[in-house]
Amino acid sequence: MMTMIIKIFNQVIIQVGKNLRQMSNSENPLNILWHESSIHKLDRQEILQQKGCVIWLTGLSGSGKSTLACAVSQSLHSRGKLTYILDGDNIRHGLNRDLSFSKEDRSENIRRIGEVAKLLADAGVICIASSISPYRKDRDACRALLPKGDFIEVFIDVPLYVCEARDPKGLYKLARAGKVKGFTGVDDPYEPPCSCEIVLQQKGTDSMSPSDTAEILISYLEKNGYLRA
Amino acid sequence: MMTMIIKIFNQVIIQVGKNLRQMSNSENPLNILWHESSIHKLDRQEILQQKGCVIWLTGLSGSGKSTLACAVSQSLHSRGKLTYILDGDNIRHGLNRDLSFSKEDRSENIRRIGEVAKLLADAGVICIASSISPYRKDRDACRALLPKGDFIEVFIDVPLYVCEARDPKGLYKLARAGKVKGFTGVDDPYEPPCSCEIVLQQKGTDSMSPSDTAEILISYLEKNGYLRA
Repeated sequence: MMTMIIKIFNQVIIQVGKNLRQMSNSENPLNILWHESSIHKLDRQEILQQKGCVIWLTGLSGSGKSTLACAVSQSLHSRGKLTYILDGDNIRHGLNRDLSFSKEDRSENIRRIGEVAKLLADAGVICIASSISPYRKDRDACRALLPKGDFIEVFIDVPLYVCEARDPKGLYKLARAGKVKGFTGVDDPYEPPCSCEIVLQQKGTDSMSPSDTAEILISYLEKNGYLRA
Repeated sequence: MMTMIIKIFNQVIIQVGKNLRQMSNSENPLNILWHESSIHKLDRQEILQQKGCVIWLTGLSGSGKSTLACAVSQSLHSRGKLTYILDGDNIRHGLNRDLSFSKEDRSENIRRIGEVAKLLADAGVICIASSISPYRKDRDACRALLPKGDFIEVFIDVPLYVCEARDPKGLYKLARAGKVKGFTGVDDPYEPPCSCEIVLQQKGTDSMSPSDTAEILISYLEKNGYLRA
């Protein structure tokens, strides 16, 4: 076998077997399918000393999903754990930038976030998905993508009037003025989970600190073995 | 502040501030935007002792992309590095299962793989994307998503007649028989990169072993600082 390595500027060109056509195809190692011997989730978890999973935060706009996602990420990072936040708003600037806010596209938005969360969890990452995800059916479809136990649904149950009073992005104001259509809680429904792993229920305007709330989730992960390989 | 923790079966319900509505909104810590103090790519890289990037393998069907992806993943894993393979075929069973093989959908297929690869790299993972990705414009669009240097395009330049002789999935046979339409190399073009980081050029049927080829890529990563934080 003849191998020639050529470097042009920063480009590396490797020439293999120049003009050698005499070898039979059966001798060609690139023709062997190696897929079985590849690296799997368990191997990645061994490196990371954690289990890949999805913490799915659902709740109204302004309920504190993003804030909680950051607090969980920070706390886990301080323990040397690898996390990644899939923020619904951010994803709409990238992967889901072709989607509108129609009912159909909102479902597709959640489907894609679920599929990416699944890939991240399979990579060994503790993925924190943060999006309103108002429809139960869509969330359940995401749950079905993950191995049993690896989809941890967290309902941030904050009353509408509290979220609306906060209105951090001014979206409730726009929705009430009719300038934003199909806004969850105003003119589109939010379907609370029937059975999810964790409910963070706020009855009035009082609330726990994000870091205290984060510790509840982290304690759940610890008890369920996600913070070790 | 009153906090009540209720456990029903495996579900944890945390009730916060039950019937306490006297606190002003300004005292509500969940209303503070923490996003700035979150964990960033550099922090994740510190944990992983590597730099997140995308190794983009492009080439004809049967050129050995998947085999090489597995070999690279195995070798990096043995060095304690976190990798994840985004295989074009696998992604079509999940995230991209709504897409056909029309020219438009093939572009969308690559766009989404690029967006996911970007997220994985941002998570700190060495992402190995393996798909024919026949159109230059689509690959360049994926490159544009990543910070400079973090998109490492690897062209597996194997002659069509070699790929067709291998035909590991029997697709060339189907394409020649007209049973598969728009097949790259048969009735749809493959546009080779004009300028990419690495070209693995095979002139005849002879080829390097996947593990030897993998070492070329790993050596590139090492030289360019991707195997340390």
